[in-house]
Amino acid sequence: MSYFKNINKVTFEGPNSTNPFAFKYYNPEEMIDGKRMEEFMRFSIAYWHTFVADGGDPFGEGTMIRPWDKYIGMDLAKARVEAAFELFEKLNVPFFCFHDVDIAPEGNNLKETYENLDAIVAMIKEYMKTSKTKLLWNTANMFSHSRWLHGAATSPNADVYAYAAAKVKKGLEIGKELGAENYVFWGGREGYETLLNTNMKLELDNLGRFYHMAKDYAKEIGSDAQFLIEPKPKEPTKHQYDFDVATGLTFLQSYDLADCFKFNIEANHATLAGHTFEHELHVARINGMLGSVDANQGDTLLGWDTDEFPTDLYSTTLAMYEILKNEGFGTGGLNFDAKVRRGSFDPEDLFHAHIAGMDAFAIGTKVAQRLIEDKVLDNFVDERYNSFKEGIGLEVVEGRANFHELEKYALQLGEIENKSGRQEKLKGIINKYLLEAYL
Amino acid sequence: MSYFKNINKVTFEGPNSTNPFAFKYYNPEEMIDGKRMEEFMRFSIAYWHTFVADGGDPFGEGTMIRPWDKYIGMDLAKARVEAAFELFEKLNVPFFCFHDVDIAPEGNNLKETYENLDAIVAMIKEYMKTSKTKLLWNTANMFSHSRWLHGAATSPNADVYAYAAAKVKKGLEIGKELGAENYVFWGGREGYETLLNTNMKLELDNLGRFYHMAKDYAKEIGSDAQFLIEPKPKEPTKHQYDFDVATGLTFLQSYDLADCFKFNIEANHATLAGHTFEHELHVARINGMLGSVDANQGDTLLGWDTDEFPTDLYSTTLAMYEILKNEGFGTGGLNFDAKVRRGSFDPEDLFHAHIAGMDAFAIGTKVAQRLIEDKVLDNFVDERYNSFKEGIGLEVVEGRANFHELEKYALQLGEIENKSGRQEKLKGIINKYLLEAYL
Amino acid sequence: MSYFKNINKVTFEGPNSTNPFAFKYYNPEEMIDGKRMEEFMRFSIAYWHTFVADGGDPFGEGTMIRPWDKYIGMDLAKARVEAAFELFEKLNVPFFCFHDVDIAPEGNNLKETYENLDAIVAMIKEYMKTSKTKLLWNTANMFSHSRWLHGAATSPNADVYAYAAAKVKKGLEIGKELGAENYVFWGGREGYETLLNTNMKLELDNLGRFYHMAKDYAKEIGSDAQFLIEPKPKEPTKHQYDFDVATGLTFLQSYDLADCFKFNIEANHATLAGHTFEHELHVARINGMLGSVDANQGDTLLGWDTDEFPTDLYSTTLAMYEILKNEGFGTGGLNFDAKVRRGSFDPEDLFHAHIAGMDAFAIGTKVAQRLIEDKVLDNFVDERYNSFKEGIGLEVVEGRANFHELEKYALQLGEIENKSGRQEKLKGIINKYLLEAYL
Amino acid sequence: MSYFKNINKVTFEGPNSTNPFAFKYYNPEEMIDGKRMEEFMRFSIAYWHTFVADGGDPFGEGTMIRPWDKYIGMDLAKARVEAAFELFEKLNVPFFCFHDVDIAPEGNNLKETYENLDAIVAMIKEYMKTSKTKLLWNTANMFSHSRWLHGAATSPNADVYAYAAAKVKKGLEIGKELGAENYVFWGGREGYETLLNTNMKLELDNLGRFYHMAKDYAKEIGSDAQFLIEPKPKEPTKHQYDFDVATGLTFLQSYDLADCFKFNIEANHATLAGHTFEHELHVARINGMLGSVDANQGDTLLGWDTDEFPTDLYSTTLAMYEILKNEGFGTGGLNFDAKVRRGSFDPEDLFHAHIAGMDAFAIGTKVAQRLIEDKVLDNFVDERYNSFKEGIGLEVVEGRANFHELEKYALQLGEIENKSGRQEKLKGIINKYLLEAYL
Repeated sequence: MSYFKNINKVTFEGPNSTNPFAFKYYNPEEMIDGKRMEEFMRFSIAYWHTFVADGGDPFGEGTMIRPWDKYIGMDLAKARVEAAFELFEKLNVPFFCFHDVDIAPEGNNLKETYENLDAIVAMIKEYMKTSKTKLLWNTANMFSHSRWLHGAATSPNADVYAYAAAKVKKGLEIGKELGAENYVFWGGREGYETLLNTNMKLELDNLGRFYHMAKDYAKEIGSDAQFLIEPKPKEPTKHQYDFDVATGLTFLQSYDLADCFKFNIEANHATLAGHTFEHELHVARINGMLGSVDANQGDTLLGWDTDEFPTDLYSTTLAMYEILKNEGFGTGGLNFDAKVRRGSFDPEDLFHAHIAGMDAFAIGTKVAQRLIEDKVLDNFVDERYNSFKEGIGLEVVEGRANFHELEKYALQLGEIENKSGRQEKLKGIINKYLLEAYL
Repeated sequence: MSYFKNINKVTFEGPNSTNPFAFKYYNPEEMIDGKRMEEFMRFSIAYWHTFVADGGDPFGEGTMIRPWDKYIGMDLAKARVEAAFELFEKLNVPFFCFHDVDIAPEGNNLKETYENLDAIVAMIKEYMKTSKTKLLWNTANMFSHSRWLHGAATSPNADVYAYAAAKVKKGLEIGKELGAENYVFWGGREGYETLLNTNMKLELDNLGRFYHMAKDYAKEIGSDAQFLIEPKPKEPTKHQYDFDVATGLTFLQSYDLADCFKFNIEANHATLAGHTFEHELHVARINGMLGSVDANQGDTLLGWDTDEFPTDLYSTTLAMYEILKNEGFGTGGLNFDAKVRRGSFDPEDLFHAHIAGMDAFAIGTKVAQRLIEDKVLDNFVDERYNSFKEGIGLEVVEGRANFHELEKYALQLGEIENKSGRQEKLKGIINKYLLEAYL
Repeated sequence: MSYFKNINKVTFEGPNSTNPFAFKYYNPEEMIDGKRMEEFMRFSIAYWHTFVADGGDPFGEGTMIRPWDKYIGMDLAKARVEAAFELFEKLNVPFFCFHDVDIAPEGNNLKETYENLDAIVAMIKEYMKTSKTKLLWNTANMFSHSRWLHGAATSPNADVYAYAAAKVKKGLEIGKELGAENYVFWGGREGYETLLNTNMKLELDNLGRFYHMAKDYAKEIGSDAQFLIEPKPKEPTKHQYDFDVATGLTFLQSYDLADCFKFNIEANHATLAGHTFEHELHVARINGMLGSVDANQGDTLLGWDTDEFPTDLYSTTLAMYEILKNEGFGTGGLNFDAKVRRGSFDPEDLFHAHIAGMDAFAIGTKVAQRLIEDKVLDNFVDERYNSFKEGIGLEVVEGRANFHELEKYALQLGEIENKSGRQEKLKGIINKYLLEAYL
Repeated sequence: MSYFKNINKVTFEGPNSTNPFAFKYYNPEEMIDGKRMEEFMRFSIAYWHTFVADGGDPFGEGTMIRPWDKYIGMDLAKARVEAAFELFEKLNVPFFCFHDVDIAPEGNNLKETYENLDAIVAMIKEYMKTSKTKLLWNTANMFSHSRWLHGAATSPNADVYAYAAAKVKKGLEIGKELGAENYVFWGGREGYETLLNTNMKLELDNLGRFYHMAKDYAKEIGSDAQFLIEPKPKEPTKHQYDFDVATGLTFLQSYDLADCFKFNIEANHATLAGHTFEHELHVARINGMLGSVDANQGDTLLGWDTDEFPTDLYSTTLAMYEILKNEGFGTGGLNFDAKVRRGSFDPEDLFHAHIAGMDAFAIGTKVAQRLIEDKVLDNFVDERYNSFKEGIGLEVVEGRANFHELEKYALQLGEIENKSGRQEKLKGIINKYLLEAYL
């Protein structure tokens, strides 16, 4: 059966197409710098937003019309698998991602939950045999059920902690079974609501122990999925421990975990933390920790995670710039952790949204690649730091300077001349490259 | 001569006093837990806000009426020293803090600047002989002069870097000369305006090298001042590298500097970074990095550093709670990095403001001390994490658990019971303690 | 049957009480300025948060343990009425508020919904005969059901508009039946998600027409409930038309509705709009439009409506200051539009939270009343604007000045002298009054 | 003499040009919809940012290198006029704007200030005889001098009020003398720092009286300049009375001034108020109050007015969409109230910045014009509100409906069907139009 029967496979038709169900810019086969565009972007569809979420918000019930919603329980889970692989194929995406609870309902106890998961995992595995779409990452949802209300691996309740361990253990097994390239940890409830009732030190210590156990277990079962932490500063929790990349990094360093984790960076989480998307990517990149991306966009005039489909071409350009500079994702990809608006409730809106997002990243990739090819920013930056390539600057960089020598040098300086940062000129150039992307 | 001639020494008169120039709550001699209140708080006056700042803002010129402003140049610098020690005594504060440029004008070149500094440092040293007021910390201003427009120790210009080194070298010497207990680094221009023109990796590497040179030089001259980094996320720079305590910590860890730095935490910087003041203090404390405090408060409905005098009793209470839990400041203190409002331009407003701030911290100290003495929060928190003191929880904490065992435990669990976090009850208790502080 | 059987009626025991289920500060019988404290505050309990909400948030399911949740459908609705009146009595609150959907489930069609409402309204009316608790206001929920996804009275769909009219018509009838003193309009979906698809002018015109029809119908049935608009800037909608009091006021003026509406002002909505709570109250007051209050507090470091119970004494003091200056509420009151935290899931937390809130407003009332009685702010403000009581200032105020005269006056002025605004001193005084409230 | 001698007149060279000192997109002569592009945009240069501002910020001194800064006093003022008209011609802009203090220094008293102004106004008038550049608007700076510290027309000091009146009187005269098409009121200090010391009602009343006197005087001297209020929510003041367009509108309505004012809308002020730029333009437009634009952009991750040059093509497109829908500006224009970054201190950066901004608006104009020509949004919106063109919807719109009739209609409705808002599809279309702008 088909869940999107009125919509055919979406193909590249080029910028002149007016077919709303065609890619105008994303051409997976187009070669960029010797690589197929598809390989650059490694798009992924988020199971939760696209097959599970109903459009409910804190002030209202669900609105989404989903053909599979006539089913319930395990039948619903199965219908979603069918719908998912239909959509994967029609959108021609190479990856998908899920939380455990997205694919199978929780049972009355953990054992039943495992059984439900096993049944659906088997079904997905079967589908994957004939599908080109692979599993980018999976994860365990440890924030939706009420048991997680005070946290999972940072809960004050040891029972909850044990339950969380079981969920991640199962998640690692499922990931291995389905060939997941990564395993993600998003700690939506790992944080605090008020310091008044919180032992932050114990919670962080316990979280560190938890990750070490996860690492040990992954090794034990021969999983080579890359572990990814996904920073978010707040929401649902007042303060989340993985506030941003820098905060995640100090945690990993403090608990001797930096070698086995990278970051899964989400645009909207970055802006909630007060950073640009590209800032977070950049910080991860220069620390060798850029793992994967949750591709979406926020509304910086709103204070919550809106998870909009990414259409801002500045954002896709600057994000792809970091990713290309990173020489690609490695095992990561661009996962659309994005939801159609509550008012975009038709199944066809799922297509409009993904097409808009994929086209936006295709354009961003081309602009970024040309900026790099032409060394537009590289040359400027290189020139700007020239003074550290010789003389006193070189001594500093090579670790041969000290305060005596630098003072001596400074004392003989006349008025120091700086060079303009040329921010406005550079912004004008970005616009020019943007408009030329599809000339 | 006197600069505040109509105002006498401010003394403690108790809650019933209606004298605006008296402390109603701050009684330096009062014993709290076997220690004089004064020793708990270690108040400090910020030279820049109180003796230098003129009330100018981005949209308008200065407004402050300051009796010493009839002088210029070195005469002005000297008059400020006189005024400062008069105010220190009249407010009975044990400490003060300054940037180099606060105490002496820059000369036409670095050598002249040094000479100006030397003259004023000698004068201050003379005053300190008969004053009880000591130097909490000093620092080098590396953000006001136009040479720092692209940063100091992270400038793309090696000349600027060398100049910064000379300034810090001199600062360390001055600190030693005056017996400063700490040396502060605030990198207001150490950051970027746009990633488009920035080599963040090189800038951070250079900053790390800079701190190592500072450390080496301090050792060389026998300075035992505690090094302090003061985090701030933004303003003046679009993004500052010392965003918050966690970001500072990962920097220090990455550059092998964590052993010789602590943090100077400012309330308003915390809120600009999206954290509460007590959060930043707490994070520093549990990492053994709580060094000192820039006592002020921001307006969370405004997006810039308002540096208001601290009067919010919740904030002073929760800050002092962390400081008392830290067993005090060590070498740090409560420095009023706060400015009277632009419309509070009379010299007497300096008194009103410091009195309001000192009284507010006195109240906060008493409330915090009673909360600790009565173990109000400690008992609640202790009980809340009980499950990690025995059984499976204890195994986790002691590092004896693994995912197999935790899963086995989880599989036999029935429905998990959590306990209420009682946030509302705890907040009601805080109010009760607040109102009882001076019963 | 009892839903809170372990908790007795909450009474005033005074500041020294350590009974968590007693008021320490709220003494309804205490006389303030010749009026019982209860009459000043007119506390109200919000049916939705207290009897309906389950603690769910965008990332997780409900957590609340509510004894009445063993029922479903109309039985649940009836159990809630029983629980509500038990709580009203045990907390001794004079008022309550509800949305239509809070008290009765929607039926399969509007007719059934009416029937459900009629049954519960009859039950509530019966309870009210023997209860002291009255209906402060009621309203129609026009944001939760999916039909409202694009708005209600501003929907692009005329069917939805008609449905909304029917809901409000019924709401006015219910309010009259139960003696509601006010009728509230909160337009959570009256706004837009994106201007790209919106005809704002038509939507606002339709909203104006809607209010006129409501006004006409209220007159027709002899309802004398005060109409109240409740401003909120955003959430759930990207932009809500009733952004703040000023925006609401220009709407009412433009559509000739200002004479029949006042404002229901919520603390957390104020801060989301970038204003303090007291600002919104003040703006409403000086325009004669202060109707009622949704008493809660937000977290200004979070970007969404947290609806916390109000415990900040600065906020309760400054809010009560405006309300006392308004000579009370008239028909309005202090409705606890506040929810216990998701982690405060025990029924007893409902008591802790309301007690904390009621005590906080009691303290605020006493502080505010003494500030007014002592004319602390009034005298300062009065003196500050002295220059408009005579000479050129008086001419301005009396409308006798013009630019010629003012210029002539200005030309002969020497240097203008301003007076300090004394903000820090005033803040210190507020703290003093706060600490003295229960001496 | 020439102040920008190395830079020639900037001309349109088209998208393929790599000359940094050429327009690539802005072609003033290009016909769009029968009108020259130049007439659509009516660009204006802001005297203060471009000829006066020195790059100082709250943490640092000026950085700008300006060839005219070798002069002081009236000589500096004259040099700036020369530089200004050179830049106007080289950038080919049709308009400029100034505050009184931008063009001439204040004297020792008001009379001297007038004399200084008269001299420079005469000089400007002379230049304007042979220049194509006209005066878009002028205004009186009533926020920089310390006398305005508590406000100007809302000052608690009647002397200040009179002085403000004199300044505006002179401003109206200057505007008339130079043929200004508008007169702007920006009340940067018209607001409050704290409600504790403020009589808001009196301040607003006085402001209303002030505007009436201004109106009367303009009429008296035969000035036909359009009066414009420029809303800003905060900064420098904690709360400014002209918070946003809606707040300004209710003020104008309340004081019977709506007929003689329009709004001058600034992008960065809009975002500081929590609105998009296009929202503020839209609200002004549908109220017939869209007067002029201060063209810049903010950084929504920063909390202050960054006044960046506008380069975001989404923002320029959506702004021009509103302006084209308004059938142009009337007497208004696009004034670059934007400053080069502190690090962009070379004179040539002024060219880069204006070129980037003018090109960005040229692109925005073309995209907006095509969206309108193709009725892309109009058709969608029109269709979306179809139900108000017939039946019950039409009755509503025509004012013939009432609650009885609407209820009757609602009672017979089955399940209501809404239509998707298609936000993601529309955003994809905007991107397509953007990329096609210069195909």
